[in-house]
Amino acid sequence: MSHSDNPSHSTVAHRREISGLEFFQQMMAGTITPPPMVSLLGLRLVDVSAGRVVFVGTAHEEFYNGMGVAHGGWAATLLDTALGCAINSGQPAGRSFTTLELKINYIRPLRREAGEVRCEAFVIYAGNRTATAEARVVDAAGKIYAHGTTTCILVERHQRDKPNV
Amino acid sequence: MSHSDNPSHSTVAHRREISGLEFFQQMMAGTITPPPMVSLLGLRLVDVSAGRVVFVGTAHEEFYNGMGVAHGGWAATLLDTALGCAINSGQPAGRSFTTLELKINYIRPLRREAGEVRCEAFVIYAGNRTATAEARVVDAAGKIYAHGTTTCILVERHQRDKPNV
Amino acid sequence: MSHSDNPSHSTVAHRREISGLEFFQQMMAGTITPPPMVSLLGLRLVDVSAGRVVFVGTAHEEFYNGMGVAHGGWAATLLDTALGCAINSGQPAGRSFTTLELKINYIRPLRREAGEVRCEAFVIYAGNRTATAEARVVDAAGKIYAHGTTTCILVERHQRDKPNV
Amino acid sequence: MSHSDNPSHSTVAHRREISGLEFFQQMMAGTITPPPMVSLLGLRLVDVSAGRVVFVGTAHEEFYNGMGVAHGGWAATLLDTALGCAINSGQPAGRSFTTLELKINYIRPLRREAGEVRCEAFVIYAGNRTATAEARVVDAAGKIYAHGTTTCILVERHQRDKPNV
Repeated sequence: MSHSDNPSHSTVAHRREISGLEFFQQMMAGTITPPPMVSLLGLRLVDVSAGRVVFVGTAHEEFYNGMGVAHGGWAATLLDTALGCAINSGQPAGRSFTTLELKINYIRPLRREAGEVRCEAFVIYAGNRTATAEARVVDAAGKIYAHGTTTCILVERHQRDKPNV
Repeated sequence: MSHSDNPSHSTVAHRREISGLEFFQQMMAGTITPPPMVSLLGLRLVDVSAGRVVFVGTAHEEFYNGMGVAHGGWAATLLDTALGCAINSGQPAGRSFTTLELKINYIRPLRREAGEVRCEAFVIYAGNRTATAEARVVDAAGKIYAHGTTTCILVERHQRDKPNV
Repeated sequence: MSHSDNPSHSTVAHRREISGLEFFQQMMAGTITPPPMVSLLGLRLVDVSAGRVVFVGTAHEEFYNGMGVAHGGWAATLLDTALGCAINSGQPAGRSFTTLELKINYIRPLRREAGEVRCEAFVIYAGNRTATAEARVVDAAGKIYAHGTTTCILVERHQRDKPNV
Repeated sequence: MSHSDNPSHSTVAHRREISGLEFFQQMMAGTITPPPMVSLLGLRLVDVSAGRVVFVGTAHEEFYNGMGVAHGGWAATLLDTALGCAINSGQPAGRSFTTLELKINYIRPLRREAGEVRCEAFVIYAGNRTATAEARVVDAAGKIYAHGTTTCILVERHQRDKPNV
């Protein structure tokens, strides 16, 4: 299989050559395809600056759990996406990160009736080896549904990335 | 729209009338449809007893993030599903739970090559008002990919459930 | 031993009759003695409003671990104190809280040379049954040493308090 | 001040030259003084093997909060101590660790009447760069009071330690 047949591989390679901020700016502009899981759960990047991103999404019924509300995994994916991208958006080309841990608080049930919710994530600390960030999921009226934090380890890409094809 | 056209509504209603253990036994037997998000992410219940469940799934490419490995949200959904079900599997009919918080550690990157991974969750403590549980995601060789814990609040269903249609 | 000989008992009783904010205002004014553990670790309340408190303290050598820096338990106690008080400072008389969980990130080693550090805690969400809060430990220059969040369950005092003498 | 007047300094230096397991075996034998904070809170190492330790302690009134029960910081210190030592007990000489984050669940109030409680900590995962561990606080009857997990980063000592005197 050639590379041109495997968009996810070429995206991974491309990401090594540009900064985190450039990568997400290109994703917002539509020249980089969002990752498969992000598309699958209907999440969309709508704002990015160094150390801060905003993702939005709607808790459609296909994302529900057995109790008729959005599965905790949907907000977890939204928060994990935003938290990781906030950290990555402040990193130069050639530096990557790995999420070590994710902590989520669920504040109230989330249903499609809440409309599009917004997840804004900020870096709390970014050093040479580790970084932390926090994020909240709120609706258009500012009502909070979940919040979370993450701890990441920062790595030079050549240390950890192997082609995944 | 009649109830018979809305499986998720009738499932939610049915869940109030049977114990958590019966509910998951019926899900394993195929007489109850898994929740939409659980199906969407390819997760499957393969074992349940009071206070313990096992879910399995495979990290296919559609669940990948932008770095060519499974998105943290996929393991988060697997862990959240198993942790919540472990707690629910020990609750009598008429009692429900709400997840207050979820904490996940990511140990190593997870790719489809790992094959079907297994998430076993156990109750640590279940009292009158709150419960906690822990879970690990491992492959067939026992290699660990992630682990997590949750804190839930236990509620009588009539206190919190309103029809969601 | 009579009750008048047991300050901690009378403090506990007194707390049931006033709001959280009044309680901490009286502690700042010196008419209520700080809890034993708070004094033992040299922590001091310096500001309080509804849903927000500031505690300060210095990481003296008596609080060190075996690696010659402040034990993680010292910052954990500082954070737990501030987080719980932030939540309690927004509660009316007769309502108490129990901390369900505490999550702490340690950013950099803390030594006495950092001088007096400041822990500011805010309520993120306070509902009828649960509340969450966040806090950071910073030095006079604003350098961050640790941050954390908590989840509490809110209870009417008569439900849970029994005299502890 | 000479080194012989400063036990904590010489202990820190000594720790670099022996493995974690030897260090804690010497602490149990009484030839190494426990860290100041551990002594201050009355905690005592009673068992150690590679990747597993047991600490004990009693929640005396001097460790109480304003509600007449043990301050959350006391159990946090007990858990943090045991979790860090469990990880360190599996590390060779010359390797150290830094705690990145600590997560604690409080299950029920802890008072001196519970007697001596026991905190057993185990390594979940230890790799080249990071490690995780879990621990529980239980009384003599096995009743659980708290449990927790930690994430540590592993470092060569020369990278991070500077004399702290």
